[in-house]
Amino acid sequence: MAEKTLILNGTTVADGIKANLAARVAALKEKGIVPCLATILVGDDPSSATYVRMKGSACSRLGMESRRIHLGAETTTEELIAVIDGLNGDDGVHGILLQHPVPHQIDERAAFEAIAIGKDVDGVTMLGFAQNAFGMAEYPSCTPAAILAILDYYRLPMEGKHAVVVGRSPILGKPVSLMLLNRNATVTVCHSKTEGLAELVRQGDIVVAAVGKPAFIQGEWVKEGAVVLDAGYNEGNIGDVDYEACLAKASAITPVPAGVGPVTIATLLKHTVAAAERRVFQP
Amino acid sequence: MAEKTLILNGTTVADGIKANLAARVAALKEKGIVPCLATILVGDDPSSATYVRMKGSACSRLGMESRRIHLGAETTTEELIAVIDGLNGDDGVHGILLQHPVPHQIDERAAFEAIAIGKDVDGVTMLGFAQNAFGMAEYPSCTPAAILAILDYYRLPMEGKHAVVVGRSPILGKPVSLMLLNRNATVTVCHSKTEGLAELVRQGDIVVAAVGKPAFIQGEWVKEGAVVLDAGYNEGNIGDVDYEACLAKASAITPVPAGVGPVTIATLLKHTVAAAERRVFQP
Repeated sequence: MAEKTLILNGTTVADGIKANLAARVAALKEKGIVPCLATILVGDDPSSATYVRMKGSACSRLGMESRRIHLGAETTTEELIAVIDGLNGDDGVHGILLQHPVPHQIDERAAFEAIAIGKDVDGVTMLGFAQNAFGMAEYPSCTPAAILAILDYYRLPMEGKHAVVVGRSPILGKPVSLMLLNRNATVTVCHSKTEGLAELVRQGDIVVAAVGKPAFIQGEWVKEGAVVLDAGYNEGNIGDVDYEACLAKASAITPVPAGVGPVTIATLLKHTVAAAERRVFQP
Repeated sequence: MAEKTLILNGTTVADGIKANLAARVAALKEKGIVPCLATILVGDDPSSATYVRMKGSACSRLGMESRRIHLGAETTTEELIAVIDGLNGDDGVHGILLQHPVPHQIDERAAFEAIAIGKDVDGVTMLGFAQNAFGMAEYPSCTPAAILAILDYYRLPMEGKHAVVVGRSPILGKPVSLMLLNRNATVTVCHSKTEGLAELVRQGDIVVAAVGKPAFIQGEWVKEGAVVLDAGYNEGNIGDVDYEACLAKASAITPVPAGVGPVTIATLLKHTVAAAERRVFQP
């Protein structure tokens, strides 16, 4: 058992990011600009509604503006893209977040692609993804960026470490794998078709759970002393990691809640402020 | 030692691809269109000169056109982009290949980005990369696509297999990793900062050498029965794999030459023909 496991406190990391932002928001306001994040929620998924509410509230607390757009469950791709186009052309909006997932009838990829790259503060466009893959992104996807921010805050090294990422989604597993790779980790990407998952996870000096299944990563799968990052957030405040069991093995671990989640939101605010600054200072 | 190692004959695979293309080129010619690949060579690197010559010759043999542009070693980024812009606007050109690497003074990424997506037959643009990462590319990078074509031709399964990719370049290691991942392989990406490389390679059911160092992958690193794909091509016709030593361990292996190389060229032709078809049949 690990001597003393470090709980990676996402609230602390997020507070650090937001403390840095407060002065920047104030400076923008002196120029007459209030950084504004537009969130788009399509349909009535309660978790998604909670997420966009949390993001909007976080904006308010920082003195930023949020514009919450709620579209009906029957919205078409064309209707959604028209809304996004409107936000793209609106000088008062600096960042656009389309809450994932959208209802089945919508072509999510087409909707993501409609977001102007300068307002793609969650790095969901293909161009944003590729810039991130090549280490050139202004706004890497917020959850992957949050995971790296936590590692950096706690000075947990990535270079030469074996990172095992469980999950391969376009907005989480794939981008975080590429970001870890760009930070010189050796990266293994596992997923639903992976054979021998336990043995692979056991190799990880760093384990990233991005699978979307409650308490999926077992304590027996985790190497003694590994760093465990739980990007999952399932019903009932349960992450993708069996927390107590993994806590007993890990040298460091993110809890759920108060782990990756708050850092993701702080990163989203940071990107939105940066997008507003770019508008003002590099017009 | 493996009972009988299958030599994965790239020439055979390439011939299969080209046989399918001949009729398509003929059909295009009946419409008055000759599919045309423009190759751009900057400077006087002898290997690069050989590559573009091979690509041009392959076009000719298939009845396609090639336009070889050779720019001086002192060419600036702006001059190169102006040439690419000209080719983008030229209706007689269907595919554009900028031979990598370019001289130091050139911003290679900016030059790649200048290629119009419809003519990006080697998948070097960021958009092409991301489309490929999401399994949506018209023209995935040719060498990664060639590696998958060889696996498919010989019916070597990827799903659930552990693929170990050595190398992480934007045009080879990264895209081939994502393509293998999209085919349901579990993928580990190794590179110059990887620790315990031999042990990691030894886990590979599929090993992709994309490192650019002659005979780098050792026989002792390769698991008995692994499939070894050598994307390297170093001076003196030497791949990235210690061929004889790996041959003794592998169940299947690509030689150099006549392995990945000819399939890469055939893939480039295939993409150029497809780009020409798209122009004619989906104007």
